[in-house]
Amino acid sequence: MDPRVTLVTLGVTDLAASRRFYVDGLGWTPTLDVPDAVVFLQVGHGLLLALFPATDLDADAGDSVMSDPTRSAFSLAHNVGSEAEVDAAIADARAAGATVLKEPQRAAWGGYHAYFADPSGFRWEVAHNSGLRVEADGTVVLGPVDG
Amino acid sequence: MDPRVTLVTLGVTDLAASRRFYVDGLGWTPTLDVPDAVVFLQVGHGLLLALFPATDLDADAGDSVMSDPTRSAFSLAHNVGSEAEVDAAIADARAAGATVLKEPQRAAWGGYHAYFADPSGFRWEVAHNSGLRVEADGTVVLGPVDG
Repeated sequence: MDPRVTLVTLGVTDLAASRRFYVDGLGWTPTLDVPDAVVFLQVGHGLLLALFPATDLDADAGDSVMSDPTRSAFSLAHNVGSEAEVDAAIADARAAGATVLKEPQRAAWGGYHAYFADPSGFRWEVAHNSGLRVEADGTVVLGPVDG
Repeated sequence: MDPRVTLVTLGVTDLAASRRFYVDGLGWTPTLDVPDAVVFLQVGHGLLLALFPATDLDADAGDSVMSDPTRSAFSLAHNVGSEAEVDAAIADARAAGATVLKEPQRAAWGGYHAYFADPSGFRWEVAHNSGLRVEADGTVVLGPVDG
């Protein structure tokens, strides 16, 4: 598993309030804005910040299998190029001592993913999303997920 | 305030265990490793992951002025080029509706910083650190802080 963070997902308590702050208030332009669902904002070279309701984030991670609720409000995502690479990264993480929270499987959003917790309980998602592409200048493009 | 995350800081419960996982287990090479204090790992173009004891992170942010303890275990950092830019970014955040947790001031580590909370209580640090430099290829270099 390479040292790479693709997304930082904030499990927000009020998506409309978060959108008002980041988009209307700070003036950041969404890469993708799905009303009442999720907002993605580019915050670095190849890096997105996702605003996602906390309950949806917990459900995506396998309905809060976290033992420590104080660590469950966000996740880091490590995106890879294939389903096999998801399996391999999870094998790496498990060998390094991670607790696998959700075994590699088809994701509700169409891709393939898994979740693990680090020693403090921080969640990492490992994902293959054929619709996520990083251009040479670092811009992240989110398109339809192709199986 | 530009859309930019410079550091993701995990407030860890056991620094030695976190170090074993990320450095020894996953094989990630620290950018800076200060025994018993903090570990910085490069996880993207111009992006660092910091492993920092949760109690130290709370102290750095002004001794946990967070109203919601479930949001206090990590912070995002937005680094800028001068102290005046710290003041300006905090003014932007306040105007956008953020709660300022720590007004701009000299930081214990030598730089100049402030903290605010977004609408869900997620902490952002805005900092000027003269010792942090991002090279053209995205490599982050951490050197001595010069006032």
